[in-house]
Amino acid sequence: MRVLGFDDAPFLFREGKVIVIGVVMRLPGYVEGVIRTECAIDGDDATEVLEGAVERSRFREQIKMIMIDGVALGGFNVVDIAKLHRSTGLPVATVTRDAPDMEAIRRALQKHFADWERRYSLIAGRALHAVETGHLPLHVSVEGISLEDADTIIKESVVRGALPEVLRVAHVIASGVAKGESKGKA
Amino acid sequence: MRVLGFDDAPFLFREGKVIVIGVVMRLPGYVEGVIRTECAIDGDDATEVLEGAVERSRFREQIKMIMIDGVALGGFNVVDIAKLHRSTGLPVATVTRDAPDMEAIRRALQKHFADWERRYSLIAGRALHAVETGHLPLHVSVEGISLEDADTIIKESVVRGALPEVLRVAHVIASGVAKGESKGKA
Repeated sequence: MRVLGFDDAPFLFREGKVIVIGVVMRLPGYVEGVIRTECAIDGDDATEVLEGAVERSRFREQIKMIMIDGVALGGFNVVDIAKLHRSTGLPVATVTRDAPDMEAIRRALQKHFADWERRYSLIAGRALHAVETGHLPLHVSVEGISLEDADTIIKESVVRGALPEVLRVAHVIASGVAKGESKGKA
Repeated sequence: MRVLGFDDAPFLFREGKVIVIGVVMRLPGYVEGVIRTECAIDGDDATEVLEGAVERSRFREQIKMIMIDGVALGGFNVVDIAKLHRSTGLPVATVTRDAPDMEAIRRALQKHFADWERRYSLIAGRALHAVETGHLPLHVSVEGISLEDADTIIKESVVRGALPEVLRVAHVIASGVAKGESKGKA
């Protein structure tokens, strides 16, 4: 089974754009393809950027699920997960190690974004579930797939670290490409 | 055991520079780090660029061997493998799937480079050995390590395709980063 996992790179706000890396992986850990794209820091093109990356991928027909490290790329460029699922026809799961602090997110959005309610509802409107992987639980939201099936795929894709391999490797690549050398996530 | 494998990205000559990706891998196939650097197409900085990448790597102390997909990056920017070994203190192996056509290389160098003899001697001065991996043999040259030990490490690092994983993944990343989506090597 192949999954496509996305993570964004570290960035400086003055750069305007952030590198986004997608990894096509055959479970549990075999890298088959790498996609590079970018989106606007704190912009609103993340959904469209991921849709385009999936659409153009030569692995399009083989991918069984999209995973994203969190629900936003490049700061608060929030992905509309329901729309990404509808437009690609693929199940989508967001996966994070740390539980989001919704109150801190709401305050940050209110302070910086005129359309904060839209962004906040895309984040806070998603039910988060704990997936136990032997480490601390992962925080997961799903679209277009049962929590049970997503749980199975996510567990199968965790090899050594805490995160699914596809997101761990996407992070290592994104970090290395943006900074010259990656800083790993365990 | 960790190895560091380098490959260059596809490039257009007008770009002047080519992206070079280094992957730090725990054998046989666990990606631990990614390095991005670049060198001049048909330039003469490849040795220095790889030396710098190794020197700056936070995995410096753990790396047991450097592998390079071929002996040149970005066209005919030839790596001085003996110097790379001396300056890093690490064994170095070049690995390619296709046997080089030395006569064609000599003609191309003579046509395009005033210092063609230097470049040619860095390429042709290296003894190539066949390493059998179950696919077609790989063509390998080594420095600072016995052919027998290099053979063992290279065989251990071939997982599914023909190439050592560290070079296969470096290729997939370099290609994906440069072109937006990778074209794989089997």
